[in-house]
Amino acid sequence: MPNWLLPENIADVLPSEARKIEELRRRLLDNFRLYGYELVMPPMLEYLESLLSGAGKDLDLRTFKLVDQLSGRTLGIRSDMTTQVARIDAHLLNRTSVTRLCYAGSVLHTKPSGLHATREPLQIGAEIYGHAGIEADVEIQKLLLASMSLAGMTKVRLDLCHVGVLGAILAQDPVAKQVELELYSLLQAKDVPGLKEISTGFLEETRNALLELPNLYGDVKVLEQAREILPKLPAIKNALDELAFLVSFVSLHEGAEVTIDLADLRGLHYHSGVTFAAYVPGLPNAVAHGGRYDHVGESFGRARPATGFSFDLRELARLMPGAERKNAILAPWGLEVGLREKIAELREQGEIVIQHLPGHKNELDEFDCNRAIVFEHGNWILKS
Amino acid sequence: MPNWLLPENIADVLPSEARKIEELRRRLLDNFRLYGYELVMPPMLEYLESLLSGAGKDLDLRTFKLVDQLSGRTLGIRSDMTTQVARIDAHLLNRTSVTRLCYAGSVLHTKPSGLHATREPLQIGAEIYGHAGIEADVEIQKLLLASMSLAGMTKVRLDLCHVGVLGAILAQDPVAKQVELELYSLLQAKDVPGLKEISTGFLEETRNALLELPNLYGDVKVLEQAREILPKLPAIKNALDELAFLVSFVSLHEGAEVTIDLADLRGLHYHSGVTFAAYVPGLPNAVAHGGRYDHVGESFGRARPATGFSFDLRELARLMPGAERKNAILAPWGLEVGLREKIAELREQGEIVIQHLPGHKNELDEFDCNRAIVFEHGNWILKS
Repeated sequence: MPNWLLPENIADVLPSEARKIEELRRRLLDNFRLYGYELVMPPMLEYLESLLSGAGKDLDLRTFKLVDQLSGRTLGIRSDMTTQVARIDAHLLNRTSVTRLCYAGSVLHTKPSGLHATREPLQIGAEIYGHAGIEADVEIQKLLLASMSLAGMTKVRLDLCHVGVLGAILAQDPVAKQVELELYSLLQAKDVPGLKEISTGFLEETRNALLELPNLYGDVKVLEQAREILPKLPAIKNALDELAFLVSFVSLHEGAEVTIDLADLRGLHYHSGVTFAAYVPGLPNAVAHGGRYDHVGESFGRARPATGFSFDLRELARLMPGAERKNAILAPWGLEVGLREKIAELREQGEIVIQHLPGHKNELDEFDCNRAIVFEHGNWILKS
Repeated sequence: MPNWLLPENIADVLPSEARKIEELRRRLLDNFRLYGYELVMPPMLEYLESLLSGAGKDLDLRTFKLVDQLSGRTLGIRSDMTTQVARIDAHLLNRTSVTRLCYAGSVLHTKPSGLHATREPLQIGAEIYGHAGIEADVEIQKLLLASMSLAGMTKVRLDLCHVGVLGAILAQDPVAKQVELELYSLLQAKDVPGLKEISTGFLEETRNALLELPNLYGDVKVLEQAREILPKLPAIKNALDELAFLVSFVSLHEGAEVTIDLADLRGLHYHSGVTFAAYVPGLPNAVAHGGRYDHVGESFGRARPATGFSFDLRELARLMPGAERKNAILAPWGLEVGLREKIAELREQGEIVIQHLPGHKNELDEFDCNRAIVFEHGNWILKS
């Protein structure tokens, strides 16, 4: 096997694509900053227990494990940065007020999430800690829509769900509560036969509600349907009210559409309130995910309300048009003061100046040398 | 053990430090671009054989190994990006002309290189492929000095070495050549007793030359000394001429000092010509390393001359003064059109606008809210 071959679902990023990714990365981080989000950089590897705090089996299976030669303990390579950032908020920053954090970095997955999915997403995201109200969710969704727009996505569909609906149903029924994780998977797969089978011993009301959830998806009318069909519990009313509020907010955004899917319970198991997924034309799968995860901080000693979103920067960049070739200036090689000063001056002005090394040809690369520095009448001058 | 604890020699980067690193990263990559370097992003993990191509045992011991669940083969987490970028040049870009590439990304080490060294350097570097002449080495050293200057390092010492000197000595003596790797280690440690012991069976001339090398360090006079003491071989003369040329070039740079150390043979074993290490005041260890490695491409099917440098961005950023707190504007929470427009307009102008969420206090963070948006006489206005 030739040794330039890469593992499956792992790829190099070549110059023009790398430039696009780098530019999008900067644009997004700069925009997060304009909203008051502070950048943090958690490490690539941590003790496994820390990485998996509050997360489910999916994340465990997705995480590469290593043995630490210094401690003998098991390390994990991060496969998701959300719990890391929650740890930083809970333990390191230790503020009592509202804290806004953002991050961007590679994560690794043992297996791709789909046939063509990468095993090395470049995860970028933003989170608000210390605020339990719907206002924080509104800000997070607004920032997500702004991010999509910076990436040139003029049409975005936000698909909303609320973990509180299932939570309220299960709170009524200890038997059903015991198989919560299985219910998550069955609901996400909209597996009605599976739900019928598992719910035989549940209360009648629980069973009926569970069997309705997979049908409660579509446009905003679903919320009215849900109010009629689902049990009249205060927690369910509250969840549906929050969703209605978000619907009215998202509809303020040009190009943004909103749908509801009350069974779209994401696999990471740490969510606690509103959750959402963003879809753009041209991609069948969601490009971004987010929502509330108020309990992750608990395992780090401090329960703080939290809400945020993240997505794979590379995937989004791939949907954007290619970066244009940049004009550049070719300069001869040499150490004369005049030449060195001319080159420094042009670079100072932001011009790309490439010094000629024997063998240099302007071949396929991202620079187009349309000018040159030449020596004429005793001076170094710029010529087309 | 509390689960917020990180493994030894692994750390989070908190907001003010992260901002400094991010800004330095951008400044350096932008400057590489002004010199005509194209950005590439190799993956975090590869098949182990690819990662270790042309590299020595040190790199092997430093690399974390994993089993690939898709292929059953052994994967490595990169501990150095140089061979990855050489692979991209040799196999993927496949150009015949001069190619300039740059990169920035995390690498992981199984063990720290020193007591306080990080196991997760943020490696940034630049490389020239396809040019065997000293001109390419000059450009690389110039770019390194420019990078140091962008990081605020006004005083830099470049310590030069040349692998060709040892190469020429060993080419004369097949017995000595057999223990080349041991000689590398002994010379680097300047272990004269060890060199005496290992060289008992060598030719008289080899032995004498090897025992002289550890003393050939200091200012540029060392080159003259070396010309007198070392065997009069063409390859040695050539190496010393190249070093003399670089010395004259580096001396053109204000604030740059140059020293020579002919026994400073770096541990990565893939170097082939001039090598160098950069030192700055305040750090005992070198902050940057670089040099020629003309043979790395061979194992990817194409031997291309190559020279470059790299360093740990985080270490350099740590030496820089802290980022200043930025002024920001506090805005009330609300969805009124007038307020939303005012906020959008200010952010458009590059102002950081933080919307108030109940619980928000301006506590310890990197923003200083010195203005606020308030509603007066029917208008949303900016007030100190």
